[in-house]
Amino acid sequence: MTFYINHTDLESYVKAIFQKAGLKEDHSATVAKHLVFANLRGVDSHGVTRVKNYIDRLEQGVVNWEHSMSVTKETPSSVFIDGSNELGIIPATEGIKLAVNKAKNTGVAIAGINHSNHCGMLADYTGYAAKHDCVCIATTNAPSYMAPWGGKERYFGTNPISYGIPGGEAGNIVFDMATSIVARGKIKLAIQNHEDIPVGWAITKDGEPTTDAQEAMDGMVLPVGGPKGYGLALLADVLSGLLTGASFGPSVGRPENLDDVQDVGQFFFVIRADIFEEMDTFKKRMDTMAKEMKQIPAAKGFDRVYLPGEIEDEREKERRMSGIPLTKELADELHAVGERYGISPRLRELVLDGMLMS
Amino acid sequence: MTFYINHTDLESYVKAIFQKAGLKEDHSATVAKHLVFANLRGVDSHGVTRVKNYIDRLEQGVVNWEHSMSVTKETPSSVFIDGSNELGIIPATEGIKLAVNKAKNTGVAIAGINHSNHCGMLADYTGYAAKHDCVCIATTNAPSYMAPWGGKERYFGTNPISYGIPGGEAGNIVFDMATSIVARGKIKLAIQNHEDIPVGWAITKDGEPTTDAQEAMDGMVLPVGGPKGYGLALLADVLSGLLTGASFGPSVGRPENLDDVQDVGQFFFVIRADIFEEMDTFKKRMDTMAKEMKQIPAAKGFDRVYLPGEIEDEREKERRMSGIPLTKELADELHAVGERYGISPRLRELVLDGMLMS
Repeated sequence: MTFYINHTDLESYVKAIFQKAGLKEDHSATVAKHLVFANLRGVDSHGVTRVKNYIDRLEQGVVNWEHSMSVTKETPSSVFIDGSNELGIIPATEGIKLAVNKAKNTGVAIAGINHSNHCGMLADYTGYAAKHDCVCIATTNAPSYMAPWGGKERYFGTNPISYGIPGGEAGNIVFDMATSIVARGKIKLAIQNHEDIPVGWAITKDGEPTTDAQEAMDGMVLPVGGPKGYGLALLADVLSGLLTGASFGPSVGRPENLDDVQDVGQFFFVIRADIFEEMDTFKKRMDTMAKEMKQIPAAKGFDRVYLPGEIEDEREKERRMSGIPLTKELADELHAVGERYGISPRLRELVLDGMLMS
Repeated sequence: MTFYINHTDLESYVKAIFQKAGLKEDHSATVAKHLVFANLRGVDSHGVTRVKNYIDRLEQGVVNWEHSMSVTKETPSSVFIDGSNELGIIPATEGIKLAVNKAKNTGVAIAGINHSNHCGMLADYTGYAAKHDCVCIATTNAPSYMAPWGGKERYFGTNPISYGIPGGEAGNIVFDMATSIVARGKIKLAIQNHEDIPVGWAITKDGEPTTDAQEAMDGMVLPVGGPKGYGLALLADVLSGLLTGASFGPSVGRPENLDDVQDVGQFFFVIRADIFEEMDTFKKRMDTMAKEMKQIPAAKGFDRVYLPGEIEDEREKERRMSGIPLTKELADELHAVGERYGISPRLRELVLDGMLMS
């Protein structure tokens, strides 16, 4: 059973929850907007499914609900931020703004953040930079679920890499990938549906290839393209973790452990898109590329060529119209979190099309 | 039949060829050193196998043998270079030096190069930065051999991404990957050996999956991890090509066409590894990571965990001792190029262990 909720209603509801839990109003708005935006783009694993865990961690005191993050070190083209163990979305949103401002001045800038937490969907940050006419690459590290290529112990997270590129008429390109072959969410889904997973997605905790979804979940996912995804996961960990002094490898805390401080790191690299040539020239070239790629006929089994991130862009348009789908389990969970704080209107009153929660 | 040649002999021989063909002595040395270094690391596809093509293009006048590259634009943290259609190794070597120098001063720098040519093995540039205590990411674009995911026309090259990271006692990490699932060299090899290739490596020119190596060669290789490799290939093209004003997509010239100007682009991003914390701290953290990963037991089918680039590091040590292996075809080709210029000693006189060319 799926419930649809208008994204602005959902955003107000989630914002109210964070505010009641003690976050400042503007930060509650930032976190709510970010999570609902992930849902809008169809990245449900990074959307409002995180609300309960974020709230539990704030309540538990393992995440800092006061606003105390600060800039530790600064140069004209770099900013180093102590995230002060706040919800990661807060320092990361601040970090990308500072990096974009610096890049506006100097052409090139980086931001590094330590003592952070899960920062949601990187595409939100790289998309922000693209809107400000900057090319941006973002990485974060994450709790370990992936073995280094050839090994049989978890070491890296599924450390994502995202980029945003400003386009002209054809729009910006915003891309976001995990360095694992598959999101862990897909393995969870296979468990729920009692299905096998393909060979090559995961290994058991003893390092044996498996098609059993539960064995995979207890074991490790594999890096995309074997040594290539492994190399990229390591790069993301170096930029986000080792360079910033945040935790790295298996030392990154797990959010589901309510007494684990995460100490995640984030990294942003921003270039003003007119660093070498005129902005117009760059955007026209982007449009030419987009047009040329869309003229390429589809290979067998495909309907057409999509630009990176285009499927998410289309999902966003659709969900802005039709609302955000929540499973019954997630709707019940969010409803209960709201009830804890007496949020009104209650989640079940927000469900669209007369589809009431059972 | 394989012929082994000492790497210093091979380097002198190749240097002499370029010098006789009209390059300045220092540039001849740079190009020879770069190509032989690729062979030392086992990246034979980017080694002395390129000599004949580079020379043919210089002789044909489609590559500029005069030294006329120049810095077009410069800020404290960026340098924009017109490669002036010289052999790509020359402006790329200059570009990484300038970017590293700027990063030494400002902490962060980029270099962009247009009007360039094939620049060899990116690991040489990122490794240079790592030796100078900088983290570096490098990209180049390349002639189109890869379809965008879902399409059935060549658009992107197998656009590589490389990085270098300075380590402590455990050594630097230098990584270099093509964004295709497999190097075209492996498909060539399958043709030579009359073998099939695995499903998923390539599609025919009509967009159908194929296991026939010749059909694959006439068709397209696929991006690594499907949409992920496609997204990374696009990023490499944007950074190297669109941002710098170099050619991009299928407009990049093919080196095998002796009247095609390539107009390749290159891009380097360099960060001083102590931008946020102390250099010692960073290197100790790198050593910790290397040590932790090497303690991870091997998964089924593997002997141990290798760090990214470690196999190439070991190959380099081995080949510095035992010489660089050349196939008979390549040895004959290089011998003939040397004969064209009357290089002495002749290549066949350099073959180690009394293994004379037939």
